[in-house]
Amino acid sequence: MIKPTRRSVFFISDGTGISAETLGLNLLAHFPGVEFHQVRMPFIDSPEKARACLPAINKAAQEDGLRPILLMTFVNEDVSVEFCHADALCLDFFKTFIGPLGQELGMLPTRSIGQGRRVVDNSVYRHRMEAVNYSLEHDDGASERHLSEAEVILVGVSRSGKTPTSLYLAMQFGIRAANYPLIPEDFERGKLPSVLDQYRKKLFGLTIRPERLHEIRSERRPNSKYASLDNCRLEVKQAEQLMHRENIRWLDSTTRSIEEIAAKVMQECGLDGHVG
Amino acid sequence: MIKPTRRSVFFISDGTGISAETLGLNLLAHFPGVEFHQVRMPFIDSPEKARACLPAINKAAQEDGLRPILLMTFVNEDVSVEFCHADALCLDFFKTFIGPLGQELGMLPTRSIGQGRRVVDNSVYRHRMEAVNYSLEHDDGASERHLSEAEVILVGVSRSGKTPTSLYLAMQFGIRAANYPLIPEDFERGKLPSVLDQYRKKLFGLTIRPERLHEIRSERRPNSKYASLDNCRLEVKQAEQLMHRENIRWLDSTTRSIEEIAAKVMQECGLDGHVG
Repeated sequence: MIKPTRRSVFFISDGTGISAETLGLNLLAHFPGVEFHQVRMPFIDSPEKARACLPAINKAAQEDGLRPILLMTFVNEDVSVEFCHADALCLDFFKTFIGPLGQELGMLPTRSIGQGRRVVDNSVYRHRMEAVNYSLEHDDGASERHLSEAEVILVGVSRSGKTPTSLYLAMQFGIRAANYPLIPEDFERGKLPSVLDQYRKKLFGLTIRPERLHEIRSERRPNSKYASLDNCRLEVKQAEQLMHRENIRWLDSTTRSIEEIAAKVMQECGLDGHVG
Repeated sequence: MIKPTRRSVFFISDGTGISAETLGLNLLAHFPGVEFHQVRMPFIDSPEKARACLPAINKAAQEDGLRPILLMTFVNEDVSVEFCHADALCLDFFKTFIGPLGQELGMLPTRSIGQGRRVVDNSVYRHRMEAVNYSLEHDDGASERHLSEAEVILVGVSRSGKTPTSLYLAMQFGIRAANYPLIPEDFERGKLPSVLDQYRKKLFGLTIRPERLHEIRSERRPNSKYASLDNCRLEVKQAEQLMHRENIRWLDSTTRSIEEIAAKVMQECGLDGHVG
């Protein structure tokens, strides 16, 4: 067995291809030695469009000297079958599982493209949009109104990861996530901003390593006191002391992806999300 | 074969479970007759934690009178094997594909939990965060500086879907997406805001059905002129005329999910994203 150095991967779908890509990247990441050349082919919803993809796939096979890997989510088998003609490894995430699922449920799956999405959308899409708008309006303590509607309120020093986490919670799970910064005045006073007092049960803290915080802040305001390593060390230490004293659950965002932070926050806070 | 009415589904993973849930929901949506009761079980990273999940699964089987469906992404087989003891249909998205992939690549997969994510993160995480910050700063024409750095600039009337789309492009694909509102003054003048003139190639328009726009705006500002159906009809018509005249590519966001809109924008604008 020869270890290849470059391999072309195609994410192909009759829909957005985002499922194929999300799962596919997770799978590929377990082969860290390989340089994957990634190509996205969404909305391939007719046999003609499928056949039009084949030259690019075959060209990649020639250039790499190795057959490409096709990671696919196809609802329509009349389309996906066209890819059997490619010189490639075909893995279809839908086809593999939709049969066993249908058998278990005693039903035939619907086969119209986009059907899936639309079924989910009607009940959930608006909820997600409202949550995104809510998170934007309650970003960085921007609005103290309606904090009672928050499902979770993220607290932490500036640039500890609150904003992307709250947006991800809203966008992916429809969770109304506000965020509220902990600032030097809070540390001097030695207690939480009073507006948060009545929402203690909803609070979740994020912290970050001072060295990383220094890097992030330096990109925004180089050579400022705000970004200095000493100040970052002090703020992080004081924020952690405050959260500890006030009995707020918290985690360190430094080495975690947004997805991980969001999933942890949901687990710790017992949030279910509004996904389907 | 009896058609069941309620079925419990568990999304289980030694990671965040977000892959399992994303792909799983897409699969389940093809069985619209069934009421799926969904439970999320992330971060199950030891055989002990796995065994602690079994009572809830078996209880669901009893209550439903039908065995639950386990949709899983497990890196660690020592953990996933514990779920064989459950009275359930087990579908493991990783296990099914990681074998064939490894064989094709001539490699054994790494097996440490979270490995995958971390390999991707170092190069991509910061890029995604910068893109999210960029999109927030360039939301709703808030900052005209640095529009030259935008990879795409979404235009459209207020509440046509620009903000969530630009945030999704940033969060999921690391794309710097600005957005710029088309307002009545632009329609009166009969041309684009002059600041956009030099960035014509980056423009992409979103439109929306007037009836839906009226609904969305009415939630924010009920009984206003802004939200009135007549005004929505007029603004949408004028915006579409403007985009047509100025030769701007556009699509209707009304019946599409954010994922679909984002994937279409990327395809039409030839954007690759920065995912791995």
